[in-house]
Amino acid sequence: MNGSIGNVAIIGSGSWATAIAKIVIEHTHYIGWYMRSQEKISNFKLYGHNPGYLTSTHFNIDEIDFYTDINKIINDFDTLIFVIPSPYLKDLLDKITINIKDKNIITAIKGLVPGENLTCSEYIHQKFKVPYEQLAIIGGPSHSEEVAMERLTYLTVGCSNEKKAKNICNILRSNYIKAKTSNDVLGIEYASVLKNVYAIAAGICDGLKYGDNFQAVLLSNAIAEMELFLTTIAPINRTISDSVYMGDQLVTGYSNFSRNRTFGTMIGRGYSIKSAQIEMQMIAEGYYGTKCMYEINKDIQAKMPILSSMYNILYKKADVKQEIILLTDSFR
Amino acid sequence: MNGSIGNVAIIGSGSWATAIAKIVIEHTHYIGWYMRSQEKISNFKLYGHNPGYLTSTHFNIDEIDFYTDINKIINDFDTLIFVIPSPYLKDLLDKITINIKDKNIITAIKGLVPGENLTCSEYIHQKFKVPYEQLAIIGGPSHSEEVAMERLTYLTVGCSNEKKAKNICNILRSNYIKAKTSNDVLGIEYASVLKNVYAIAAGICDGLKYGDNFQAVLLSNAIAEMELFLTTIAPINRTISDSVYMGDQLVTGYSNFSRNRTFGTMIGRGYSIKSAQIEMQMIAEGYYGTKCMYEINKDIQAKMPILSSMYNILYKKADVKQEIILLTDSFR
Repeated sequence: MNGSIGNVAIIGSGSWATAIAKIVIEHTHYIGWYMRSQEKISNFKLYGHNPGYLTSTHFNIDEIDFYTDINKIINDFDTLIFVIPSPYLKDLLDKITINIKDKNIITAIKGLVPGENLTCSEYIHQKFKVPYEQLAIIGGPSHSEEVAMERLTYLTVGCSNEKKAKNICNILRSNYIKAKTSNDVLGIEYASVLKNVYAIAAGICDGLKYGDNFQAVLLSNAIAEMELFLTTIAPINRTISDSVYMGDQLVTGYSNFSRNRTFGTMIGRGYSIKSAQIEMQMIAEGYYGTKCMYEINKDIQAKMPILSSMYNILYKKADVKQEIILLTDSFR
Repeated sequence: MNGSIGNVAIIGSGSWATAIAKIVIEHTHYIGWYMRSQEKISNFKLYGHNPGYLTSTHFNIDEIDFYTDINKIINDFDTLIFVIPSPYLKDLLDKITINIKDKNIITAIKGLVPGENLTCSEYIHQKFKVPYEQLAIIGGPSHSEEVAMERLTYLTVGCSNEKKAKNICNILRSNYIKAKTSNDVLGIEYASVLKNVYAIAAGICDGLKYGDNFQAVLLSNAIAEMELFLTTIAPINRTISDSVYMGDQLVTGYSNFSRNRTFGTMIGRGYSIKSAQIEMQMIAEGYYGTKCMYEINKDIQAKMPILSSMYNILYKKADVKQEIILLTDSFR
């Protein structure tokens, strides 16, 4: 397999999927786009934009072929970018009945596969025998709203095949997107899960009225904890201050728009886990990520006090205030 | 010299000086306090609080001896905590005519000595022959407003004499202050200067309407640049994610209350350097820090694109927009 990309399709209809579609279509002037709902597609065609997300981002409908059949879109395209919430990935992949071994599969999913405790790339590799050199991921600090506004954003494409990573970068790069390659697929995937766990922690502390001085300490310790985990599970030479690790953590941890942070803030203010989830009506991926990461870390035993603390709060009914007080004693 | 601290005096009347006075007096129930202005002292005594800063922080006036004579306060106390803007330090030290070789000198100054390109501890060591083991610094992410509100804050005391550092920690620690020791005096001093330079950069980019995605990349690169400089100039084993380095950078870089960030924002919005300075009526220490650090780095030649860019903008009349565009190309 050389590094060629061929025709590109987007799988998913949320705000990050829409932002990636916008970025890609500027280069390719043609994409396939899978959405579950025919009604959504009809409205998209009617309005010329995604009816639910980034509504000010207009598309030329002639440049898009919409699909509701996952097998058909896979059949018709060479490169598939999966951008759906991680809790839905398994169900969607279960619908795939055709051979996808020859396809390029890019995931821009910030989460692990629940119940499997595998990253998305590992899961797709195991389930469909897609070779690692055809599996890539897109990471980086990237609120989709800012991509929609064409504010400068740095993306990192992880792939074991460097030529392929470079070619993916080439369909992302523009006057507002800088893209670089990495071979640390696993590290980037884990980092993008952990950052949501730590964003929940930041939210909880905010809800408990800890201030900016403490938030800075929390996030510094979160980055140290992230680095320790990555070094333990995938000991390659990486620079934790690269934007795809630290930058992504900072944008999520400091943003009031992060749903994970908001979810945490509600818990810090005294909402139960259940009522915070109902109130939000959105998926806080860090909730699932916490359990997966906690279970993965049981095997490798990295010292991760923030992760453990979040696990105790979210899954063990630990007293929120007490748990955070204990945590503060572990910080450097 | 053992690690004993003796009686403690505060030199300075700003908001961080007031916060440190509050922290220390809770332990010692007695401090000396130097202020330049007798009128300020009179008002302080009248109101029971600093008339200019942290006005809701009340002091028991019976626990304070105020001084306007720097030599007299040095004579009367064993440990002197200097907390004044770095541009004023030289003038104040020039007034010292008595021997201070036996004193403990702690600085909580976030800046270098202008014109000398030395850190405060280096300058005091050279000028007064105070041994390094009697010189200490206090660092960490610490908006004084939050200390006044007793929000949990982490401080780090740097001193080559560990016992002394521990004893200083003991007069800082409380239910809202955690304090730890470090032997990286120089590293902490340089980091506290650089963070203000990078906060100006964050402000400039904010003023130019770069978004949160980019700010996260800028600050990640700032931390990488800080680490490279510290490793080059003082190659000891340090963890850059410690709160005294990364935490302090984050709280300053992300805070709208940072005067350095505000100064940068004005420049990003098109104010001239001069008019931004006049408008602010406050000292943005990063302005001086930029020049000092740039000159120091001329010798050691660490690769510091953000520092160079700030120097070009603040001292070389470089086009702000263009300079930042060039900078964005250097980021990881």
